[in-house]
Amino acid sequence: MVYFNCDYTEGAHPRILEKLAGTNLEQTPGYGQDIYCEQAARLILQACAAPEAQVHFLVGGTQANFTVIRWALRAHQGVIAPETGHIHVHETGAVEATGHKILALPCGIEGKLTAAQVEKAAAEHFAGSMPPVHMVQPKMVYISQSTENGAVYSLAELEALHGACQKWGLYLFVDGARMGYGLTAKGADVTLEDMARLCDAFTIGGTKCGALFGEAVVLVNPELSEGFGYAVKQNGGMLAKGRLLGLQFLELFRDGLYFEICGRANQLAYQIADACKGAGFTEYAPSPTNQQFFVFPDPVLRQLEAKYHFSFWEKVDEGRTAVRICTSWATREENVRALMEDIRAAGSRL
Amino acid sequence: MVYFNCDYTEGAHPRILEKLAGTNLEQTPGYGQDIYCEQAARLILQACAAPEAQVHFLVGGTQANFTVIRWALRAHQGVIAPETGHIHVHETGAVEATGHKILALPCGIEGKLTAAQVEKAAAEHFAGSMPPVHMVQPKMVYISQSTENGAVYSLAELEALHGACQKWGLYLFVDGARMGYGLTAKGADVTLEDMARLCDAFTIGGTKCGALFGEAVVLVNPELSEGFGYAVKQNGGMLAKGRLLGLQFLELFRDGLYFEICGRANQLAYQIADACKGAGFTEYAPSPTNQQFFVFPDPVLRQLEAKYHFSFWEKVDEGRTAVRICTSWATREENVRALMEDIRAAGSRL
Amino acid sequence: MVYFNCDYTEGAHPRILEKLAGTNLEQTPGYGQDIYCEQAARLILQACAAPEAQVHFLVGGTQANFTVIRWALRAHQGVIAPETGHIHVHETGAVEATGHKILALPCGIEGKLTAAQVEKAAAEHFAGSMPPVHMVQPKMVYISQSTENGAVYSLAELEALHGACQKWGLYLFVDGARMGYGLTAKGADVTLEDMARLCDAFTIGGTKCGALFGEAVVLVNPELSEGFGYAVKQNGGMLAKGRLLGLQFLELFRDGLYFEICGRANQLAYQIADACKGAGFTEYAPSPTNQQFFVFPDPVLRQLEAKYHFSFWEKVDEGRTAVRICTSWATREENVRALMEDIRAAGSRL
Amino acid sequence: MVYFNCDYTEGAHPRILEKLAGTNLEQTPGYGQDIYCEQAARLILQACAAPEAQVHFLVGGTQANFTVIRWALRAHQGVIAPETGHIHVHETGAVEATGHKILALPCGIEGKLTAAQVEKAAAEHFAGSMPPVHMVQPKMVYISQSTENGAVYSLAELEALHGACQKWGLYLFVDGARMGYGLTAKGADVTLEDMARLCDAFTIGGTKCGALFGEAVVLVNPELSEGFGYAVKQNGGMLAKGRLLGLQFLELFRDGLYFEICGRANQLAYQIADACKGAGFTEYAPSPTNQQFFVFPDPVLRQLEAKYHFSFWEKVDEGRTAVRICTSWATREENVRALMEDIRAAGSRL
Repeated sequence: MVYFNCDYTEGAHPRILEKLAGTNLEQTPGYGQDIYCEQAARLILQACAAPEAQVHFLVGGTQANFTVIRWALRAHQGVIAPETGHIHVHETGAVEATGHKILALPCGIEGKLTAAQVEKAAAEHFAGSMPPVHMVQPKMVYISQSTENGAVYSLAELEALHGACQKWGLYLFVDGARMGYGLTAKGADVTLEDMARLCDAFTIGGTKCGALFGEAVVLVNPELSEGFGYAVKQNGGMLAKGRLLGLQFLELFRDGLYFEICGRANQLAYQIADACKGAGFTEYAPSPTNQQFFVFPDPVLRQLEAKYHFSFWEKVDEGRTAVRICTSWATREENVRALMEDIRAAGSRL
Repeated sequence: MVYFNCDYTEGAHPRILEKLAGTNLEQTPGYGQDIYCEQAARLILQACAAPEAQVHFLVGGTQANFTVIRWALRAHQGVIAPETGHIHVHETGAVEATGHKILALPCGIEGKLTAAQVEKAAAEHFAGSMPPVHMVQPKMVYISQSTENGAVYSLAELEALHGACQKWGLYLFVDGARMGYGLTAKGADVTLEDMARLCDAFTIGGTKCGALFGEAVVLVNPELSEGFGYAVKQNGGMLAKGRLLGLQFLELFRDGLYFEICGRANQLAYQIADACKGAGFTEYAPSPTNQQFFVFPDPVLRQLEAKYHFSFWEKVDEGRTAVRICTSWATREENVRALMEDIRAAGSRL
Repeated sequence: MVYFNCDYTEGAHPRILEKLAGTNLEQTPGYGQDIYCEQAARLILQACAAPEAQVHFLVGGTQANFTVIRWALRAHQGVIAPETGHIHVHETGAVEATGHKILALPCGIEGKLTAAQVEKAAAEHFAGSMPPVHMVQPKMVYISQSTENGAVYSLAELEALHGACQKWGLYLFVDGARMGYGLTAKGADVTLEDMARLCDAFTIGGTKCGALFGEAVVLVNPELSEGFGYAVKQNGGMLAKGRLLGLQFLELFRDGLYFEICGRANQLAYQIADACKGAGFTEYAPSPTNQQFFVFPDPVLRQLEAKYHFSFWEKVDEGRTAVRICTSWATREENVRALMEDIRAAGSRL
Repeated sequence: MVYFNCDYTEGAHPRILEKLAGTNLEQTPGYGQDIYCEQAARLILQACAAPEAQVHFLVGGTQANFTVIRWALRAHQGVIAPETGHIHVHETGAVEATGHKILALPCGIEGKLTAAQVEKAAAEHFAGSMPPVHMVQPKMVYISQSTENGAVYSLAELEALHGACQKWGLYLFVDGARMGYGLTAKGADVTLEDMARLCDAFTIGGTKCGALFGEAVVLVNPELSEGFGYAVKQNGGMLAKGRLLGLQFLELFRDGLYFEICGRANQLAYQIADACKGAGFTEYAPSPTNQQFFVFPDPVLRQLEAKYHFSFWEKVDEGRTAVRICTSWATREENVRALMEDIRAAGSRL
């Protein structure tokens, strides 16, 4: 069986394992106070052109999300998110478990929020003369780059969201679990510098982008940085051997490895998408990144799933199912070629 | 500088790194549903002689503690702990952040709770005819094996605590961040089988006992096992590449490596302790494990700290300070010998 | 100005004030342990034909809702509610502030959930072979009788919801802030006995039904009753002079006053609705209870609002607005007649 | 049986009931937006000489305490309190249930914290060069005026606490559930103006000082006032008929009734205390307020308790018990005289 179901089926990029092995017996201070975390943070801030920002390394994405959100919000405040947002759907209510409501807004198949939606939601709350104390006060906007359905915010969209947030006093927080794929996507015009310029906080995902694990939390707005270490510890995100996180991000950002491997995975994903379209299968959601979403007749899917793992996404109708096909740094070209052939063959039998 | 300040200054035991490298390109399901987690759990349950229990692998100790405690308690319930307990002092209020009060009881220099203390606290709450609804209801007892000050509960002490908990309907939860050191300590008469027989839940620490990271949570009481995966995910403890945890514990428990390396670290700690005592320095707390606590005159400490890192523990009086000296799987014998010589030399100059 | 905006603009039914005055100097135990609470609880349980159930008296509705929900749910569980539900929209995220997600489902203009919706949501979560630990587990269904838009669940609807909840192991919790109006509504076929037979917990509202304040929480499912006093105290709902709650419910349930005054308010509301319809104004939502919802052209509304307060409900389109017109035990017939005349006059000018 | 066990055994001062009856049919806006709340707030701020401060009226003391504390603290912050503090002992962990640790400090029999204690605790946390992120950050000091054991902070003590709080950036919050008794106590030199000058927030208790219920929360520090209405609603403290709170405090503060009735209760308490001392019974804790604490031999206590209710406080030794004897606005002089005689008689039989 070959796994195309997600981007975290293997371990880490070999260079990362080498780095871990090569430094294994060095003694360093714990809890992220080591030289590797310091160097990795510096590299990331250089890439962001944001020398005043702060970087903290956390282990996982759910943890990073709820830690930042809980930290940024006061008790009566909530976070606006698209209704397909990871925090709303797939984190077991972790944000609510810290006491905060997610103000979910409808979004299209791409899973994006628009500035107009944010403006409307904020205006409804803040426009009156009295604070509407019976309702949760919006204070943050959460989006993902790339989104759950593989889409990418353009620079114009991001700037509009930034503008809406500035206007209404909202923080803009971007979940970058798949930031590497988002920034290297076909047609993408957003850079890390833009992220740092337009967001109050964002994450740069390691887990799905070549690391064993780890998310770099970049705190740009100084209101959010002071004391964030307390939040990391309190929420169980402070790794005793913090060096493990520093070392991995150091390797990923030392010479562009992060973007190189994510870009390559995107390219492989496009090949698969082309094969699907060529064979006549319907695109479920348009995606320029490593996650591709296609609709297959159920008998076709059963055949393919004898050899390949995909992620079930949705039962589209009686006889058809949408699945996610995913590539990563570790995806082998021969497996992609085999999958493409099988897809073409399935198409020709329709 | 040589670090004796804690047991997490290096990476992982070399065999663990080899295992990670050797399996790096295998594809496995995520979130702990892989074969390595399954095998590791089976090995641990064998060692516990508790085939019906459940094992979950979490990344860190604070995370494991508050996840178990939140999971086990209802909103009005609290956890009895020694006032030096890690959850009470060094986890940034993580337990309270999940909504639960820690009912801290005084404890001696060893950091242990007694069955009599637990009985008294429980009786005060439950003895009346009406539920004392103005007070937090005790529902769990939290202890550590070994304790924050390196002490070890004897089998008799543990059985008494178990009895008190049974009598009053309390869960007994043992934080085993240093379980390896506790069970291989000089004079220790407790085994993993005893832990599983006497506790409702306990952890087996990896981070401080040879792994890169990871705590195995063993849930013995079936009231606690069903659905625990929800808690792991919600609290940010579910590693996407769960295999990393499974692989490490598999290696540690495959042939007794876990106990072997912890036992060795204990032996090195005893040598240091003997050197301290021989040189006339006062023991701060008696410890049969890898953490040793000694009081040094400040000038002596300043000299030693030119070459070695210790952990500050307490300012004992105007001119003396207690420190923790810690060994681990990674401690080098030549460093221990050098430290012992320097201690002896310092003693002779007194 | 005459207030028709809500059902809590005056104090309490005169008989309640008399009762409070008449017993003011009696000495009673605090915190709801007094004889009046006991008598009131007994009367309510008689009316429910549920002698084994428990009654607790809390001060307010938001408090009662989040106290019950927090009490009933474990950390990973959430509550299904209609998207217009009071807990989802108008309680400042109080449920989320206790750590629990509201799983909001779409509902029509009446604000009702159907059994089919509940079944679907539950089946999606529970149908697989593995617990879907990345998602909040539904454990409770929250509805209101009458709803936010004045609608009433029929006995058949309630029985279907009960059946769905039983099938999937969900608690059924009914917010009865306006229970008195709901049970005395035109065409209503549900009784308090039905509520007690079909729900796990429900409230009987006092605040909006003739009392100064107070909600009676009826816990039918014994899983929910034991220890509930802890929850009341912890969540700030335990009145020191609990007698005040007992006395009010005693008076309301002693001889049917509760239903008498709510039924009368419903009748007055129907008269207003008839006047609106007769004058050609559109019903916004069909309501057989004391809340009536009508759409007025904005100029008409401005005229009426020179003399009467209504509640703004929604801007229906450019030139029309929906408002709530509300009656209560305290509504004066002369005010109703005057309003009807003004509505008719406005209609004739259209 | 005559109740001397607490100060909330009767209803409200007759003038309050009259006021409620006299205004019962007036129509007012809900949720504290009425004219009576506005007038009462103005009177209180006049008494405090703090025109810029804010007053919110909440129903109960536990509610007021946890609402203010949750509101003021960020997730990683805790509140310093004496170990006998009401929030630490008798509120079912309500503060922890909102996510915050109580940093309990030892206190003497009077139940007071000293400025030196606060300074020490703060210095331990803040003195280092790095934020000690493994520990809860102290951010607030909670004390009571009068304390749980009836003691009163002097102006000098309060000013010293204020100074310590200012120095370390801590909020000073005073629980004034018995403020009326505290400020009218024998030898008391603190006024409401001092409270407003020296505290960031404090409450003025109604429940135990003549009202049916109600606590006025005075927010002096503007950091705490903006948006507090959200907190009141979210935590279940916003009374729909908020007028009930406004009316009561209006009556209490209109012409000094609040201080008059509390002062009278103190005087009656002193008479009881004198009788106890005169009869040879030991004072348990020195109290210049309406709560008196005395130790009785158990046979004496059994005799007295045939006629009077006291509050059990502590089993002092094998044969003796400390109880609380409490007066209030409602205490009848003939009952005090009878109690004094019975105490004297008991003393003479010793």
